[in-house]
Parts: sequence; structure tokens; C-alpha cells
Amino acid sequence: MTQAQGYAATSPSSPLAPFSFERRAPNPQDVALDVLYCGVCHSDLHTARNEWKNTVYPSVPGHEIVGRVTAVGNLVSKFKVGDLVGVGCMVDSCQHCSACAEDLEQYCENGFTGTYNGPEQGTGANTYGGYSSHMVVRESFVLKITHSDADLAAVAPLLCAGITTYSPLRQWKVGPGQKVGIVGLGGLGHMGVKIAAAMGAHVVLFTTSENKRADALRLGAKEVVVSKNEAEMAAHTNSFDFILNTVAAAHNLDAFLALLKRDGTMTLVGAPDSPHPSPNVFGLIMKRRRLAGSLIGGIKETQEMLDFCAQHGIVSDIESIRMDQIETAYSRMLKSDVKYRFVVDMATL
Amino acid sequence: MTQAQGYAATSPSSPLAPFSFERRAPNPQDVALDVLYCGVCHSDLHTARNEWKNTVYPSVPGHEIVGRVTAVGNLVSKFKVGDLVGVGCMVDSCQHCSACAEDLEQYCENGFTGTYNGPEQGTGANTYGGYSSHMVVRESFVLKITHSDADLAAVAPLLCAGITTYSPLRQWKVGPGQKVGIVGLGGLGHMGVKIAAAMGAHVVLFTTSENKRADALRLGAKEVVVSKNEAEMAAHTNSFDFILNTVAAAHNLDAFLALLKRDGTMTLVGAPDSPHPSPNVFGLIMKRRRLAGSLIGGIKETQEMLDFCAQHGIVSDIESIRMDQIETAYSRMLKSDVKYRFVVDMATL
Repeated sequence: MTQAQGYAATSPSSPLAPFSFERRAPNPQDVALDVLYCGVCHSDLHTARNEWKNTVYPSVPGHEIVGRVTAVGNLVSKFKVGDLVGVGCMVDSCQHCSACAEDLEQYCENGFTGTYNGPEQGTGANTYGGYSSHMVVRESFVLKITHSDADLAAVAPLLCAGITTYSPLRQWKVGPGQKVGIVGLGGLGHMGVKIAAAMGAHVVLFTTSENKRADALRLGAKEVVVSKNEAEMAAHTNSFDFILNTVAAAHNLDAFLALLKRDGTMTLVGAPDSPHPSPNVFGLIMKRRRLAGSLIGGIKETQEMLDFCAQHGIVSDIESIRMDQIETAYSRMLKSDVKYRFVVDMATL
Repeated sequence: MTQAQGYAATSPSSPLAPFSFERRAPNPQDVALDVLYCGVCHSDLHTARNEWKNTVYPSVPGHEIVGRVTAVGNLVSKFKVGDLVGVGCMVDSCQHCSACAEDLEQYCENGFTGTYNGPEQGTGANTYGGYSSHMVVRESFVLKITHSDADLAAVAPLLCAGITTYSPLRQWKVGPGQKVGIVGLGGLGHMGVKIAAAMGAHVVLFTTSENKRADALRLGAKEVVVSKNEAEMAAHTNSFDFILNTVAAAHNLDAFLALLKRDGTMTLVGAPDSPHPSPNVFGLIMKRRRLAGSLIGGIKETQEMLDFCAQHGIVSDIESIRMDQIETAYSRMLKSDVKYRFVVDMATL
């Protein structure tokens, strides 16, 4: 066992505060790492506040983690002390179901182990995330980071926001010659714009805020549509190969489904608290359109995404914060007052 | 011009009655045929009663047509006098858009011409359907019938109910080793069961009626699930490769979406009058499931379906009626009192 320092919520209403806890000593297949940077995902806030009604307290959030290896178990072959590594939303899975066999641990039929809020495979113990001094993670859930040192803080959000957008874009074969929509310009959306543009697609960003127009173009969008403007939307009817919808708030899906070509797909990566208005079935039937969902990505694909982003010079647009600013960051995140991801510099812990 | 006899609705409230009208003389690319049998589709009733608010009166319904060729234009090469032919839901399309170029005339970007309720390409004239003595149809929308003469009445429903179920089953690559659900055992559903079974899938029929169990098994289902029985439904969670949902009435889609495996698809072929309850996004995300729509099928695929059905000995289960029984048939159809399709013997006209 080693002693770790972190920041934890101890109840839905208590602000996150310093918390001391134990990490397991590395098993033969484990990698130990010091956490350098940890991105702040909306899921962290949902969990800290028990908004999904499944939080085990104390809760140490954080699943967009960049760190440096400090020790490896004697069965570890891919990493050595000093390596830069990443950890995303998962730290384990059953490793024997059909999903795990296909490198799709996020769909593990026995349930993957979240980086925080557990449960740990076998023991069922709660897991503690990246708002902490160091971690011990099974090698097969550790990613190699090949970005330059200067980018490390901005790499952290790739581990959740990056893979969550990369995976459906790959799944639906986005590439050159395609017109691709990204709905929403937040933590996920801004990664979706960058990645889809790097894949060669003609990217159109949909936003409710006129004032995000310039930023979206800077990030790689070729066009920006203010989705409240019906005429602007109508001009794009039946023209999209694929739409990635990153908005978790309930909204009218038909406005976007109508923009898909025949056989086009809109993939949702955010689940709203209250249901979206029911999509119009006629709109699906008349153009053989599809509405789909997607959940983060597998470990193999996460490595592919990190390599793709390093190759294309893609990182997140971030605002660096101290660990003791986390509650302020949560408050600002709730007002969408962040461009586009907070990242905790763990040296401030 | 030739004089045709048919049955028409002249207003939303008037019963269908004998109606005399003119058909065009065959153009060089046209096939003229005597109508032998015409299936009775729910769309016929929707249109006769103006339930879709787009009916042009007088309206002669009928788009599940089997007939015999009586004349061909001098540019017609695929058919000769005496051939048995079929006509389905479409009699024309623009022939130059990307959908038409891909043999997907049902998604014609300029709008296909319905077999009834037009509009005719070019003239915009109303079209008159198969509840009539004879028809004149562009060669490229006429299908070859290779079933035996004894089956002809029961072949008619293949032209709509058959292709509407065949097309999504093919689109989503249903075949041996797959577990496939068919929701609803009506005109569409009973064809879906027969066709999916012939494709080699393990077919499970979902119905709200316990008393349809024996029939579903006879038609080719390996299992029958009464969808109101939650325990029976739960036993099939995460197990289906594909579900074809033929039910047009609003119902809870989540009950079926939850039965799909990871990456499974449920395709809807019926559009409800009032919306389905909004599907749960979490259920789509957690297993990367898809909800899709599908509209009849293209002409090339309709021919493929007819040939497939002839090869596998598949026809519709029908009840033959006289033309003057059409209103009684509509009334019984509204009570689902038909196994599983009414077909008008046009010799009774």
C-alpha cells in the first residue's frame, strides 16, 4: 500500500476537499504513475454531486489523466519508469467477454471498472480517480503519450473528450469528401471539430450562440450554423453524411436529423437528464436515416486516437487551474464559461 | 386513351364505389397490363380517407398488383404480351438523381410517383392504382413474376408488404447465425417472419396477443414473445442482432431497443399517428445501438425479393375478397381481423 493525496467529495452537498487514502502496491501487471495533469469532465461533477444516484463516497473524480511512470510490476512490458502515460475513463474490465475480445472494453458485458466510482474487478472496492497525487493502473489500461512535453496539460482531455468524439467519427468512417456536423461547442464539441477536420471532412459546427462563430472557424470548422435560425438550418437539409451530437441537454433532434442525407447517421454521445422530444419516425423512414449512440472508446482505439492527435498536432483548448479552484471551475462549467476544458495542474495539489 | 373501370373514393367520407376513367395509351416505353389481383394495404385506407391530408380525389387505391401484359410499347424489351407482371408502390421517379442512379427510386430526391395519388412525372396528374381493370406503367417500374399461377393472388402483397420487410432485412445483412426479432404479426410482420426465416436467421416474433403464438411458429418463427410479459422480454436482453419493427401504433421502443446486442439495429417501417415515447438515449449509448427507418425498396431490390420468394416458395397468407367487399375489408383491417392480407380478385370488378 502507498499513501495518496487527493481531492474528494464526501457527500452530494460538500465541496471537494483534501483527502488522504491508500493505493494498492503495484501488482506484477500494474503501472504506478504520478499524476501530472487531470482534465475536468462534466461527469466528475455529476458523480461528486451524486446526480446519477450511484456515487460511492468518498469520491475522488478525474478520468482525463496524464502522468509519469514511477514504477512497473515485473510482468509489465510496454512501459518503463519515466514514460509519459495517459489514463482515461476505464482502469479495468472483465477481459474475457466478447466485447473485451474485440477491444471494446467500454462495452464490457460484465461492466468495465470506471477510473473512479469503481467497482474494482474482483474486490468490488471503490476506485479513486485522477484528482490525486498518484495512481496504480493495470498495464492494459495505460496509454502511451507521444505529444511533446509542452502540450501535456492540453493532452489530458483527449483521454475522455477526445476519444468520445474520435470513436464515433471512426466508427461511421468519417473522411475526405464528407460533410460532417458537430452539434455543440463545449469540451466534447471542440474536440469533435478538430478531429473531424483532421480526418479530412468538411466540418459544420452547430451552436445556439452566435458568439461562438469565430472560435469554431478557428478550431477547424468550415461553416458555422446557429441552430436557432431556421432558414440557416433549412439551407443544409439532406446534406450531411454524419452528425455527431455532443449536446446532453434535451433538444429537438429532428432539426438535425432532417439535415442528414439518405443513409446518414446522427450519433449521440450525451444523455440528457430529461428525454429529448421523440424523434419523428417519418424523417427516419423517408431517408433511411439512423440515430445511434456511442460511449467513449476502447483502449486500443484510445491509443490510436492519441497517436492520431500527436501526428496532427491536436490537443484540447484548455484553461489550467489549481486543485483548490475545482469548485469554482465546476460553477463556471455549469455556465459553459470555459474554453474548452479545465485542467488541474496536479503540482498544485 | 383507353377506358378503365375501377373503384374510387370521391371524398374522405364516401365509401369506395365503381368509377370509370381514362388511362393513357401506352408510350413506347410503357407496358399495359390487365390487373388480376390487388392486395389491400393499410395505406389504401389512409389515402381513401385522407388521413395523411394529401389525397387527391377521386382516389383509386391499390399498390400490390399482379397482372398480365396485354400490350407493350415498341421500346419495351423485358416484357411481352402474356407475361405475368407485378407493380408495387411506385410507377415512376425522376431517373436522374443520385438515389435513382443507385436503384433506390423510393428515395428519389425529386419524389417518386406513387402508384396512386400521383403526381405523374412531368404532367403532375393524379395517378390511379390497382383497384382497376388495367394499368399502363413505364417498363422500368414493372416486375417479372416467376411464381406459379396458383400462387398469383398471394404474390400480390409481396409488392408492398414483402419488399418493405425484405429491404431492411437485406440492408442490415440478416442471415444464418443471427437472432432477428420481428415486432408485430400483421400484413408486414407475417412477411417479415417468412422472409427472415428463409434468410436463415433465428426468428423471434413479438406480439401483444398470446393467441398469435401458434400462427407465428407456423409461419417460421422459432420463438414467440408476448411483449406485455416483462419477464419474457427480459430473458432476451442484449441478444438480438437486428429487430424489424412493423408496428405503426405508438409504443415503447425502449422495451425492444434493450433487447439488441451491442451494435444492433432496430429498423422502423411504420410511422405512428402520434409519436412513440422518446427512446432512452442511455440505452443507445451504452451498447452503441442504432434506431433506423426504412421505406419500401427500390425496383431492382423488389425484383430480387420476388425472385427470392419464388425460390423459397414464399407468398403472403391471404383472404381473397370481391371488389365490392372492399369497405368490409377496411373495417375488418381496422380491427386487425385479417390473416394476413386481403387481396381483391379483380375478376370480380
